[in-house]
Amino acid sequence: MTYRIDCLQYANWSEKIFRQMREGGLDAVHVTITYHENFRETVLNIERWNRWFERYPDLIFQGRTGDDVRRAKETGRTAIFFGAQNCSPIEDDIGLVEVLHTLGLRFMQLTYNNQSLLATGCYEADDMGLTRMGREVVEEMNRVGLVIDMSHSAERSTLEAIEYSTRPIAITHANPEFWHPAKRNKSDRVLRALAESGGMLGFSVYPHHLQGGSGCTLESFCSMIAQTAELMGIDRIGIGTDLCQDHPDSVVEWMRTGRWTKKIDYGEGSAAAPGFPDMPDFYGDNRDFGNLETGLRAAGFDAEGVAKVMGGNWLRFFDENFTPIQASSDAGKRAAE
Amino acid sequence: MTYRIDCLQYANWSEKIFRQMREGGLDAVHVTITYHENFRETVLNIERWNRWFERYPDLIFQGRTGDDVRRAKETGRTAIFFGAQNCSPIEDDIGLVEVLHTLGLRFMQLTYNNQSLLATGCYEADDMGLTRMGREVVEEMNRVGLVIDMSHSAERSTLEAIEYSTRPIAITHANPEFWHPAKRNKSDRVLRALAESGGMLGFSVYPHHLQGGSGCTLESFCSMIAQTAELMGIDRIGIGTDLCQDHPDSVVEWMRTGRWTKKIDYGEGSAAAPGFPDMPDFYGDNRDFGNLETGLRAAGFDAEGVAKVMGGNWLRFFDENFTPIQASSDAGKRAAE
Repeated sequence: MTYRIDCLQYANWSEKIFRQMREGGLDAVHVTITYHENFRETVLNIERWNRWFERYPDLIFQGRTGDDVRRAKETGRTAIFFGAQNCSPIEDDIGLVEVLHTLGLRFMQLTYNNQSLLATGCYEADDMGLTRMGREVVEEMNRVGLVIDMSHSAERSTLEAIEYSTRPIAITHANPEFWHPAKRNKSDRVLRALAESGGMLGFSVYPHHLQGGSGCTLESFCSMIAQTAELMGIDRIGIGTDLCQDHPDSVVEWMRTGRWTKKIDYGEGSAAAPGFPDMPDFYGDNRDFGNLETGLRAAGFDAEGVAKVMGGNWLRFFDENFTPIQASSDAGKRAAE
Repeated sequence: MTYRIDCLQYANWSEKIFRQMREGGLDAVHVTITYHENFRETVLNIERWNRWFERYPDLIFQGRTGDDVRRAKETGRTAIFFGAQNCSPIEDDIGLVEVLHTLGLRFMQLTYNNQSLLATGCYEADDMGLTRMGREVVEEMNRVGLVIDMSHSAERSTLEAIEYSTRPIAITHANPEFWHPAKRNKSDRVLRALAESGGMLGFSVYPHHLQGGSGCTLESFCSMIAQTAELMGIDRIGIGTDLCQDHPDSVVEWMRTGRWTKKIDYGEGSAAAPGFPDMPDFYGDNRDFGNLETGLRAAGFDAEGVAKVMGGNWLRFFDENFTPIQASSDAGKRAAE
């Protein structure tokens, strides 16, 4: 069975986009529900998703485990998995890690570009690594089955998260620095450590992460994937498009500045190009997910390799990392025996 | 199989009390997590419970469905089901009904003594019945599988909730007015309507609800249960002790006054007796749950009837009322076929 999983999107969700997910054959999508929102605001975003689940049950439903991806395929729908690109939803309260996991959160970045209470983001000048609270939260995320995502984190913080975490972590949406140097792309050192620890990299088609930007070709993108497979192994890579469809440019401004500055911050953009960049020709929206399969075959991947990159690897990762460590229940059973 | 379920407690939880639940053979307890708390404060209370679940996995775990009661019995533990005695945790936001259900809330009172956004409490002079938002929330609670509890509600509001709700409701902790007239006890009319709609009454041993107060005897209590069984039928009754163990009197003051008044409100107490009343001799804590079985046998119940009142009826009610109406998932499956 071949599965199609996109492990990062933040679109201006609508029935149109949910139908495009079906047209693209996506069995699962990891959607961002938080950039800078606090707990209550994140819950409001979950409430919006609940209304979409109620309204479009023939297209989407909330995913919680790998088996939901299988159920999605069986029923011709797309399983939606929640993720946060920042640790803002847990505020200063470690107890919210479990609460948010219960509400379905499956990925959480420890930082989004800036220093957070937990770690350092990729745009800071200095990188202090995991903070005191950061270590506590990593441990708690490990316990409940909430995956650590370091896509927007700085290098030392990322390496420390990989090392300190007892379960594999993810970089859901980034590309290798060797192909396109950018603050958001990752060094060989990070990618090797990620792979060795059983972690996963999701390749992004967001133009600022691409060689040649919006002009990047499918051939170049898939040849980069082939090179990364050599570096990390065929089992450690998947797709995380970072598709930001149908949003006005005010949204990329919100992503970059949140409430932390009153000034303009262009992030990966510039004063000359402050908005969302144009998508590359080979990837406009979810309907193009199959293009990646074509590109991977052309780049020399065999059928098994293609299936792993298109979703098989993420599915295995979901199976292994979304549920709590079973200590409690087992302890209870042992006590009862 | 005989099950023991107490469908309402609010104790000053501790390892001692969890061990007493085990000594009393309780397979499930519905615990109050909210009196006046808003959403965020309720989540903080859930976080406290999560720590207890983590710390005492050999004694307790969180219950979500009737099957968790069976799992509790099999593993020698007590399943803890969350309930709110007020609608304060949903604030003015109907979307929080589903969010709280996902976090495990299984009962919610529409009112706690006073007028709420949803309905009228039993201490108000007038009773306006279900409000506009009240009807919307009842419908949403029906959809997700969050049981409406009218223990502290006024009569018209209660009758309207029974009528408007498409699923059976509960009065988790109250006694019949015919036995002991009190604002918190229920009229024959309410009890009949409750029974005819498939709802459940949980008998309380809180002294203010008892004939003779703290001096009430087991014989009198169980003979009242026998009379109620004649009125409501043997399938519509269970236990909801309202046990408030180990709390200082400041807690009963919080229950009564919350943040809605700056004055003292004695509720069911009085200036002469403002604190928690003494428990009756036959029920001091969870270890006495078995006394009720003895009393019911003495009052003439057969083994089957005893099993129903001690927990069998609540278990059936849990099985039928804690899960969402299956429209969404079925619609999705239909669409896939």
